[in-house]
Amino acid sequence: MIKVGIVGGTGYTGVELLRLLAAHPQVEVTAITSRSEAGTPVAKMFPSLRGRYDIAFTDPAKSPLSGCDVVFFATPNGVAMSQARALLEGGARIVDFSADFRMKDRATWEKWYKVTHASPELFEQAVYGLPEINRERIRKARLVANPGCYATAIQLALLPLVESEFVDHAHLIADGKSGVSGAGRKMELGIMYAEATDNFKAYAVHGHRHHPEILESLQSLEGASGRKLGLTFVPHLTPMVRGILATVYARITRETDFQALFEKRFKGEPFVDVLPPGSEPETRWVRGTNHCRIAVHRPMDGDTLVVLAVEDNLVKGAAGQAIQNMNLMFGFPETQGIDQVALLP
Amino acid sequence: MIKVGIVGGTGYTGVELLRLLAAHPQVEVTAITSRSEAGTPVAKMFPSLRGRYDIAFTDPAKSPLSGCDVVFFATPNGVAMSQARALLEGGARIVDFSADFRMKDRATWEKWYKVTHASPELFEQAVYGLPEINRERIRKARLVANPGCYATAIQLALLPLVESEFVDHAHLIADGKSGVSGAGRKMELGIMYAEATDNFKAYAVHGHRHHPEILESLQSLEGASGRKLGLTFVPHLTPMVRGILATVYARITRETDFQALFEKRFKGEPFVDVLPPGSEPETRWVRGTNHCRIAVHRPMDGDTLVVLAVEDNLVKGAAGQAIQNMNLMFGFPETQGIDQVALLP
Amino acid sequence: MIKVGIVGGTGYTGVELLRLLAAHPQVEVTAITSRSEAGTPVAKMFPSLRGRYDIAFTDPAKSPLSGCDVVFFATPNGVAMSQARALLEGGARIVDFSADFRMKDRATWEKWYKVTHASPELFEQAVYGLPEINRERIRKARLVANPGCYATAIQLALLPLVESEFVDHAHLIADGKSGVSGAGRKMELGIMYAEATDNFKAYAVHGHRHHPEILESLQSLEGASGRKLGLTFVPHLTPMVRGILATVYARITRETDFQALFEKRFKGEPFVDVLPPGSEPETRWVRGTNHCRIAVHRPMDGDTLVVLAVEDNLVKGAAGQAIQNMNLMFGFPETQGIDQVALLP
Amino acid sequence: MIKVGIVGGTGYTGVELLRLLAAHPQVEVTAITSRSEAGTPVAKMFPSLRGRYDIAFTDPAKSPLSGCDVVFFATPNGVAMSQARALLEGGARIVDFSADFRMKDRATWEKWYKVTHASPELFEQAVYGLPEINRERIRKARLVANPGCYATAIQLALLPLVESEFVDHAHLIADGKSGVSGAGRKMELGIMYAEATDNFKAYAVHGHRHHPEILESLQSLEGASGRKLGLTFVPHLTPMVRGILATVYARITRETDFQALFEKRFKGEPFVDVLPPGSEPETRWVRGTNHCRIAVHRPMDGDTLVVLAVEDNLVKGAAGQAIQNMNLMFGFPETQGIDQVALLP
Repeated sequence: MIKVGIVGGTGYTGVELLRLLAAHPQVEVTAITSRSEAGTPVAKMFPSLRGRYDIAFTDPAKSPLSGCDVVFFATPNGVAMSQARALLEGGARIVDFSADFRMKDRATWEKWYKVTHASPELFEQAVYGLPEINRERIRKARLVANPGCYATAIQLALLPLVESEFVDHAHLIADGKSGVSGAGRKMELGIMYAEATDNFKAYAVHGHRHHPEILESLQSLEGASGRKLGLTFVPHLTPMVRGILATVYARITRETDFQALFEKRFKGEPFVDVLPPGSEPETRWVRGTNHCRIAVHRPMDGDTLVVLAVEDNLVKGAAGQAIQNMNLMFGFPETQGIDQVALLP
Repeated sequence: MIKVGIVGGTGYTGVELLRLLAAHPQVEVTAITSRSEAGTPVAKMFPSLRGRYDIAFTDPAKSPLSGCDVVFFATPNGVAMSQARALLEGGARIVDFSADFRMKDRATWEKWYKVTHASPELFEQAVYGLPEINRERIRKARLVANPGCYATAIQLALLPLVESEFVDHAHLIADGKSGVSGAGRKMELGIMYAEATDNFKAYAVHGHRHHPEILESLQSLEGASGRKLGLTFVPHLTPMVRGILATVYARITRETDFQALFEKRFKGEPFVDVLPPGSEPETRWVRGTNHCRIAVHRPMDGDTLVVLAVEDNLVKGAAGQAIQNMNLMFGFPETQGIDQVALLP
Repeated sequence: MIKVGIVGGTGYTGVELLRLLAAHPQVEVTAITSRSEAGTPVAKMFPSLRGRYDIAFTDPAKSPLSGCDVVFFATPNGVAMSQARALLEGGARIVDFSADFRMKDRATWEKWYKVTHASPELFEQAVYGLPEINRERIRKARLVANPGCYATAIQLALLPLVESEFVDHAHLIADGKSGVSGAGRKMELGIMYAEATDNFKAYAVHGHRHHPEILESLQSLEGASGRKLGLTFVPHLTPMVRGILATVYARITRETDFQALFEKRFKGEPFVDVLPPGSEPETRWVRGTNHCRIAVHRPMDGDTLVVLAVEDNLVKGAAGQAIQNMNLMFGFPETQGIDQVALLP
Repeated sequence: MIKVGIVGGTGYTGVELLRLLAAHPQVEVTAITSRSEAGTPVAKMFPSLRGRYDIAFTDPAKSPLSGCDVVFFATPNGVAMSQARALLEGGARIVDFSADFRMKDRATWEKWYKVTHASPELFEQAVYGLPEINRERIRKARLVANPGCYATAIQLALLPLVESEFVDHAHLIADGKSGVSGAGRKMELGIMYAEATDNFKAYAVHGHRHHPEILESLQSLEGASGRKLGLTFVPHLTPMVRGILATVYARITRETDFQALFEKRFKGEPFVDVLPPGSEPETRWVRGTNHCRIAVHRPMDGDTLVVLAVEDNLVKGAAGQAIQNMNLMFGFPETQGIDQVALLP
């Protein structure tokens, strides 16, 4: 039984973490911090947790996290990079949901996030927490940067292609569609019910913040070394709560059996499911689960490959993948606590 | 480990049963029948179950259910009453999701369902599977009639009132609102996406089939004996997938502490949660769970009591309650396999 | 051609007013005010209006409303009561969407709205803008208080009952269901997409602000004089954009032909449609239109009458009714500019 | 005043046509046929039309269309090609919503639609009804083939690119997203509410029937002659009722001012709106209207152009464009009856 602390548990990734950890037999959540909600019982804010959590939110000023074996930062960008060092020195390990530690190229990071990084030395040490790429390094890590939700789906859809030489790496296209929960539990006009329902739109067409994270991670792959990657990524807001579908387009430059390429790459992966040929995956197939399901298509036998990948942005795209990383870091079975079946319908 | 068979597993209550049973440590699903889908792997029809179920649907003509310890009928009305006898004689116990065995007054049942009952002797033996009323009888039952989804929520909202004498029993009103999954996985124009979304309507205003089931069950309560119950029940179709909210109105005839009345009645009930005064329960608070959460209101301190009850129609209103009944019948812990946390958001 | 000014055109009732006025042949919108958006072209904030409106929002400090023949206040409570006098003295007529002038009993109004009224003398002069009750008085009015959205649907459902003596007037029940646009174009956690979609709940169960407005208006009817009305009103938030369904329950105390009672009462009303017996009206049947459609039921021939009324909360419940009132005030045909057909699906 | 007949008015494009024609001052709908609904009043099937249409559906065997000046076929593929000849000979003009007359290459058409064409000579005479390409030919046409919904949005997004030489014509990509009404008013499992809501998926990834129609139409443009077009088109089902967003990707091969290219191409077009640079159009901006709104982007100043186009699939993608074509054919003002403002929210 390890002790778990959560920073910023009032958002959607926080409550999802609480949902999943309630089913994990080897953890106890001992502290959850919130400045604005200090003193409020967790189950009062989220009545769905009544009977499952007796604790209340604690003011972070009271050092409630000391003694935790692992601390999850379910916080906006900028929080973890200020607080990580002290916690690490106190002996805790960290899984950070934010973008604070996701890259190695600090100049690019600072350009996109428009701040100077508060912990440059940790920036370098952190391990990018995509187990399908970095499993062994995650096992030994003390600080894991949990990937972005789009970044997870798009990378899993691209991995087998980028590690090999069958498509034009310089002109990849990812057309992303996300449910509204990806924007978080915050008040913005565009994600009010009457604005977002029965509607569809692209956003951040000029450039989305997950873009550099995806590029750097893929470019650092062994198989990809030396080749320049180019990616056009257009995200779209979809009137649903959870779920991402990434539709990836790649120009075929050399023939191979792409279905076999994907199946081989992900053989044995507990959370990546390469679907049978002809499949058209639906986001609800993974609702509430840590799975990414992938289908490989070649429309009309042309020279463009289409890869479809679905995930739950709050699970494999956030809280579930964080627990997967925690399981690796602590030597627990990788699927422990995150083997739920999708809620369908 | 007991062997479980399912008749009619291609509907929403069937796939929900499979989702929940996958998390139950003491059962193995050994057979699932479907005439139309015989031979189709379950995980092909429901890709959300990939990796969890290896079995295929079996033609019922091949007697796949022999040897099962318990058989769930997740079928339309009329199926269980024809097949129950043979299974019971073969030693299986039965939980029937349909209305076939929910009443004792056969004349009324046959009037509402417009058929002659195929097994009148079983009709009498069956136990109405609402544990909050019939827990001890369910433990010993061989044939349990799982209550209807509306019937569960409305009865739980009315129980403390009908067992006592503080309101006018003759003029109860239940304004029910249900998600669309309550209509089942079948094709009807009114539940097509473009017909049911962004829309709201009442239906079956002339009389809903759960009406007589509710009345008979409540009238047979010890506390209710001798008093004539009157209930106006108007169901409404709500543009959401899962969930029922019942808004119950009762005229107060004698003063009492209604909050205390409810808390006392449901003390110790594992799946009924009487919320603190002032609560306004939301259907998503119980999405995917076996809980019914109830709030008691007295608007503007007037003479009308308002009780709000929420449940997930596919869980406490169907598959979850069926497992709760199975747990009672087999001496398993009552909450085993059905202690999920709600998926929120 | 009259000149129209709009105060507070950035909300949902404001943009709906603009949509409808664009189709009205006898009006020109000459001014629309907004402090926060002064200078922004209307069509930039609402691209749905591109090509239809060339004007920009104007700072109210610049007196853009002088010269207007009619001014609509599509503002929160408290704005119209401060600005109405000056405009009236300048010769304009006013239709106010807020609650500022909807009642006559000032003490009750001030209790519910928790402020002292800024223009008591106008409070008394204002005409309650429900044409089905006050048509002739509206024709001559200079200041019309447009009814609330719930208040419109519930009153139309109750009118024939309250004006006669066939039901128990002291124990009326209105179970209201509203789309999310009723809450306005503002940021509140409960109406975020991920909070409000796929969910259902009651709210303001302790007492909704439309309650006293409904009671006072109905009680002042000639037919109702002398009898004490009692109403329990529970509103519910429904995951749809537009639409209200009011389900009204009344105990029958004397027999009559209720269908005929309703048909007679609303004969000739251009915007109230009494549906054939057995109808179950849907909110989409009136989406985008000024109609209220009503069905009268007597479930199982019992002693409880059920009346179902649907309207579009932004049209008959706000902007459409405001134009209907304007048409009456200026002698235009009553249906002019508001004879759209519902958008279905 | 011309006489209008409608074949197949029970679907979504049929009821949308009725909605729009009710606002057209120069037409009278004199006949609407349906075999299955013969005798049913139109307003009974669609209560949203109560008070607007007194006619009933007529059995087509009774020749109700004789005497019509124009007949709309709002029917599935295969109906118009059998009935068009007789109507044309009787003096009527025809606008066909189906795919029966949309192409010139009969071999390709027959391959995709898997039938032999019933009227090969009309196949050649029909004019493809996209006014932005064929306005003058439509004016003189007796038989117009109304384009498909996807085909309209995608062609408008591609027109300026295909008529010029700034992008790689051989590798165009159209990622299409459509609301569920695009599938029609029919019963299919995948478009049931509980299947399609809160979900997202691609479909027809192997090849969608609008594909050959788009290619042939674009390839026949004067500016495109001689160049081989290549298009990968992946449609997606979106949980909304109306609306298409097409996200088009094209590789830039020669520099130009793309914004200016689009503005120039569509200057004066009454229903195509090129939005200001940086716009991210939303489907609700055109809900219920005949407009297509287009934005031109070049993400991160790279070599990939992104064009976003939104339309209402039932209006510009079907019934509205049909009326636009009718207006051209009969010399009415092109925007008459189809100048509605979008219903927002």
